[in-house]
Amino acid sequence: MKALVYHGPGKRSWEEKPKPKLQEPTDAIVRITTTTICGTDLHILKGDVPEVEDGRILGHEGVGIVEEVGSAVSNVAVGDKVLISCISSCGRCDFCKRSMYSHCRNGGWILGHLIDGTQAEHVRIPFADTSTYRLPKDANEEAMVMLSDIFPTGFEVGVLNGEVAPGDVVAIVGAGPIGLAALVTAQLYSPAELLMIDLDPNRLEVARSLGATKTIDAGRPDVVKAILEHTGGDGVDVAIEAVGIPATFDLCQQIVAAGGHIANVGVHGKPVQLELQKLWIRNITLRTGLVDTFSTPRLLDMVNAGKLEPARMATHRYALTEMMKAYDTFAAASRERAIKVVLHAGG
Amino acid sequence: MKALVYHGPGKRSWEEKPKPKLQEPTDAIVRITTTTICGTDLHILKGDVPEVEDGRILGHEGVGIVEEVGSAVSNVAVGDKVLISCISSCGRCDFCKRSMYSHCRNGGWILGHLIDGTQAEHVRIPFADTSTYRLPKDANEEAMVMLSDIFPTGFEVGVLNGEVAPGDVVAIVGAGPIGLAALVTAQLYSPAELLMIDLDPNRLEVARSLGATKTIDAGRPDVVKAILEHTGGDGVDVAIEAVGIPATFDLCQQIVAAGGHIANVGVHGKPVQLELQKLWIRNITLRTGLVDTFSTPRLLDMVNAGKLEPARMATHRYALTEMMKAYDTFAAASRERAIKVVLHAGG
Amino acid sequence: MKALVYHGPGKRSWEEKPKPKLQEPTDAIVRITTTTICGTDLHILKGDVPEVEDGRILGHEGVGIVEEVGSAVSNVAVGDKVLISCISSCGRCDFCKRSMYSHCRNGGWILGHLIDGTQAEHVRIPFADTSTYRLPKDANEEAMVMLSDIFPTGFEVGVLNGEVAPGDVVAIVGAGPIGLAALVTAQLYSPAELLMIDLDPNRLEVARSLGATKTIDAGRPDVVKAILEHTGGDGVDVAIEAVGIPATFDLCQQIVAAGGHIANVGVHGKPVQLELQKLWIRNITLRTGLVDTFSTPRLLDMVNAGKLEPARMATHRYALTEMMKAYDTFAAASRERAIKVVLHAGG
Amino acid sequence: MKALVYHGPGKRSWEEKPKPKLQEPTDAIVRITTTTICGTDLHILKGDVPEVEDGRILGHEGVGIVEEVGSAVSNVAVGDKVLISCISSCGRCDFCKRSMYSHCRNGGWILGHLIDGTQAEHVRIPFADTSTYRLPKDANEEAMVMLSDIFPTGFEVGVLNGEVAPGDVVAIVGAGPIGLAALVTAQLYSPAELLMIDLDPNRLEVARSLGATKTIDAGRPDVVKAILEHTGGDGVDVAIEAVGIPATFDLCQQIVAAGGHIANVGVHGKPVQLELQKLWIRNITLRTGLVDTFSTPRLLDMVNAGKLEPARMATHRYALTEMMKAYDTFAAASRERAIKVVLHAGG
Repeated sequence: MKALVYHGPGKRSWEEKPKPKLQEPTDAIVRITTTTICGTDLHILKGDVPEVEDGRILGHEGVGIVEEVGSAVSNVAVGDKVLISCISSCGRCDFCKRSMYSHCRNGGWILGHLIDGTQAEHVRIPFADTSTYRLPKDANEEAMVMLSDIFPTGFEVGVLNGEVAPGDVVAIVGAGPIGLAALVTAQLYSPAELLMIDLDPNRLEVARSLGATKTIDAGRPDVVKAILEHTGGDGVDVAIEAVGIPATFDLCQQIVAAGGHIANVGVHGKPVQLELQKLWIRNITLRTGLVDTFSTPRLLDMVNAGKLEPARMATHRYALTEMMKAYDTFAAASRERAIKVVLHAGG
Repeated sequence: MKALVYHGPGKRSWEEKPKPKLQEPTDAIVRITTTTICGTDLHILKGDVPEVEDGRILGHEGVGIVEEVGSAVSNVAVGDKVLISCISSCGRCDFCKRSMYSHCRNGGWILGHLIDGTQAEHVRIPFADTSTYRLPKDANEEAMVMLSDIFPTGFEVGVLNGEVAPGDVVAIVGAGPIGLAALVTAQLYSPAELLMIDLDPNRLEVARSLGATKTIDAGRPDVVKAILEHTGGDGVDVAIEAVGIPATFDLCQQIVAAGGHIANVGVHGKPVQLELQKLWIRNITLRTGLVDTFSTPRLLDMVNAGKLEPARMATHRYALTEMMKAYDTFAAASRERAIKVVLHAGG
Repeated sequence: MKALVYHGPGKRSWEEKPKPKLQEPTDAIVRITTTTICGTDLHILKGDVPEVEDGRILGHEGVGIVEEVGSAVSNVAVGDKVLISCISSCGRCDFCKRSMYSHCRNGGWILGHLIDGTQAEHVRIPFADTSTYRLPKDANEEAMVMLSDIFPTGFEVGVLNGEVAPGDVVAIVGAGPIGLAALVTAQLYSPAELLMIDLDPNRLEVARSLGATKTIDAGRPDVVKAILEHTGGDGVDVAIEAVGIPATFDLCQQIVAAGGHIANVGVHGKPVQLELQKLWIRNITLRTGLVDTFSTPRLLDMVNAGKLEPARMATHRYALTEMMKAYDTFAAASRERAIKVVLHAGG
Repeated sequence: MKALVYHGPGKRSWEEKPKPKLQEPTDAIVRITTTTICGTDLHILKGDVPEVEDGRILGHEGVGIVEEVGSAVSNVAVGDKVLISCISSCGRCDFCKRSMYSHCRNGGWILGHLIDGTQAEHVRIPFADTSTYRLPKDANEEAMVMLSDIFPTGFEVGVLNGEVAPGDVVAIVGAGPIGLAALVTAQLYSPAELLMIDLDPNRLEVARSLGATKTIDAGRPDVVKAILEHTGGDGVDVAIEAVGIPATFDLCQQIVAAGGHIANVGVHGKPVQLELQKLWIRNITLRTGLVDTFSTPRLLDMVNAGKLEPARMATHRYALTEMMKAYDTFAAASRERAIKVVLHAGG
């Protein structure tokens, strides 16, 4: 079969690989029908995630058709259309029992990281019963593939960790796919205001179309002052960090109100300076997290009920065989005005 | 009357001051029968709290007898014995309605800070209805004065913000009065283990007598390793920072388990380095806070039910007129083996 | 002044009464500009609320202009436009400190019940600082008067007590003003489905226009079966009882899913039969409650942000002087297709 | 092998049955070393649980040694000592993912109910990975067997559903094994008072020895009045129903304070009358539930930490072969002063 293979920093190729086989009674083999590329895949390609080995098939998002199941799999059957979660969960360790699937003792984020992933014609999914979701035959695959990672991430790590509540003023720093997923899912809790802060005017425009009530150019020298003034000097109830650098974290801690919440979604490569000499007295809650995907069933319900339209994040479409070109587009997301680049097998 | 007066960094005196008078219909005048000295008072004396002006009477903890009440006061009457909260709450602003009394728009921590305090023969208490608690005539004043500040602080900002739960492993960094109050009130939630970390062997011994299941010398070079090994490599469920310097905060972030909580109680004068490049993936919650004293009624119930014995924190006793000597003792707390120094008027 | 006065079961008149005067330093006198009639007022008129005495001015909802304030009032001033809460809260008793204002030791629901109410040209409001909300001069009074009672009631006692969450299936039994307020405010939490059950086709039509995703005639013999089938046999996540009779309560307990919530909003005059022999095993939560109005500031924020349009509940408008006619209309609500009948002074 | 077999109402025998075999890859076969008898077993014998068929081996509590495991079992291995949960959980259905194991689509309470149980020399345990807990070799089996059912039941359905909090006044109606387990585990949250109400003076004495701060004879004609007076007229914060008849439920609803919680643990055979005409206004929460056993790992931690001593519930001991006699004793629990009757195999 063909797959997108990592060959060390800066090197990727669409090449022939052996088709995966069942290894455990809890495995399933899935034929990929739709997949996408994550910002994390670009990080891997930069060499930022050293545990990814040369030869690894990338990708942790996907929709496909079950081709084979192990003897202990009972939730999905051959022929089922399934959503693949970016998090593999064994369902029986202490972390899984606490719904902290990201810290599963036997799984977690392993697809396209520690084992071969979904940017391929076929993929082996461990713990299939607790790591995939059966979909109706006619499911919108472009919507569904957004539920592999970015929607549960924006929702759990941004919105739920930030405790967004009706009437809140929420600021989201970073209008990339995850920040936009947070923007969309924050609306499930009806905040009074949703401020989106980013450098890219195109992404701010997308944010407005997706529900931001105000957008702010992150490059303004007075961005903190502008936000504080907008909130009568009090600051925002919830600040969601969706970039992953010290400057954006710093912005969050400067604009959060007393009693407010900072939800860190960004993947950070360096320490940040926490202004504890100011914050100790302000009754702040800061949460970090890798997505657990416990919310995926709820998000599926919301999509089915027409309350969420994740397919709106798909800006570019390619055939699966055009994987290299899709990577080129996504790597130049700002210039290409790309949010999510979707790849479809077959038709 | 006599009072302990701040005269700029390093200068305090026990001197004659005018007796306070009612200023608002919601005020009460209280004759102090028992008071104590807080670590914060020592900070003020070092000049660390610049908003305290020359001439200010210090002190934000106390028990006394109501001498006079304004026309709108209805919860307490002349002759009542009352506990004075370190937080003055107007009861009618937006923060008070959210039980965030520490951020009261008209009060907060003002006693011995922005207005004259309790280390005096008499004190004016604003918003008396919502800032004092009526006590029985025979209340143990040494127990009660611990409920002005250190017990609600240890409980709310340490234990509740840390979400201590039955079966948890809890580490408390800092065995001063607040750390010890956190140690005692953490036991209300029956953690499996309570580790106390400090440099002072005497305070560790006190911690053991108050319920610490294990004490650790903070000066050991391998303190992080020791704690991680003690928890099978996972780390602690809750880390309570009760010192207020970068090193102790750093210890907390190194020992907290995935999914765990850091509760910052320490008063910090400098920023700290937050290791977000490690923590972003670990589903951590960090909370800061000034005490709101919303828990004071519950703590009073617990003392009355014999479930808490705050008087055990009192190690040294003086007459109110010996205030200067009491400060000398508390300023040399380590050498004097002092936890809390209590001052009684009259007898 | 003129006021609507209760003279025992079945007897009301619009008559001359003395203008109210300040009695306590915490009182305000308000000139009513907008008021409305509640289902509870009709109950009083039927004699169902025996503690209401002959001569009592009815009404617990209103918007007006402050005419006079007591010496201890600081949140509102003469000339301010204010929203009057149906719950008077002293702000200093144990229940108020727990935000259970409905059980305030000195207040609670007293307006138009134990003291004279708002269906008058002027009204005395006790504890004005904690029982009224200052409004902008140009506030939409028809929207605001819905926040005196029905919106916080539907929201707190229906939606929050029912723990409505994104993706839930919610059933509301009873499409009167409170049931409709629950319907509208439930949408703040983005349930997947909102079923409205009632006998009145007009009210079901209104429910559809306000966001019900499905309406069901409560008179169908197979209503339970229909709802269970609609939910794949599992039942609804949340059942909100907004009528107050045994039959509607019974419907709720028959349709609630395992692990689900029943929120009782209805005012009941008789016991109900609880099918504990079936429910003991089903992990059900049932909550009751009188509104506390703790959510009023949030609801005001939501209205200001354009997220809620309570004025849509106003179907009929009268001059304040047409109070008797307004009562006639509201008493025949079904025939008149009335939801809320609003009375305006002046213009 | 030998087992206790149900043969219709009133009929039980200790007789020869075939040794169980593995049926699914997720099964384990366990040799029972310690088991006990539950009040539910007596209900089954009375014919109150009609779905139990003639020929069924009873029992849903036990500790034993794993003899055989299916191919998909990975948490426990042959030779391990394990605690058997009364609830079998598949770990992969929607209810299991919400930690509502009692409603597992493929399991739930099935042992000694819908499939053969633990009052036997060997038992087949379905979904062994998610339905058993590995124990140390030297675990106290008498303590552990209390964690199969009664401790998680008292804790989850009584204490957690009742939201017992520090400083609360808690009343427990019924001092049987479950009521006493609630009494013991309620102390993990440090209530100020624990009132135990029962008819049996011996059980009340046991309750006092286990931490009840006050015991009340349920037969007193003025029991409601006595409790209300004891709480200054307000009622109790939490009422735990641990009997399962209308009279005890009624007591709970009469003594619960405004804003309080009723936790129903009792197994009810009949409807009860809910006094909604009084309770609608009192902001009450009522919860029901079958135990989910999600708390078992925490309870194991607490026992290991010496914070709980469940073995104190064992009042009578028999050899496994004396099963018939053990049933006789437990059936006459009041006369025999029995709380839990424990059966040990072998030595």
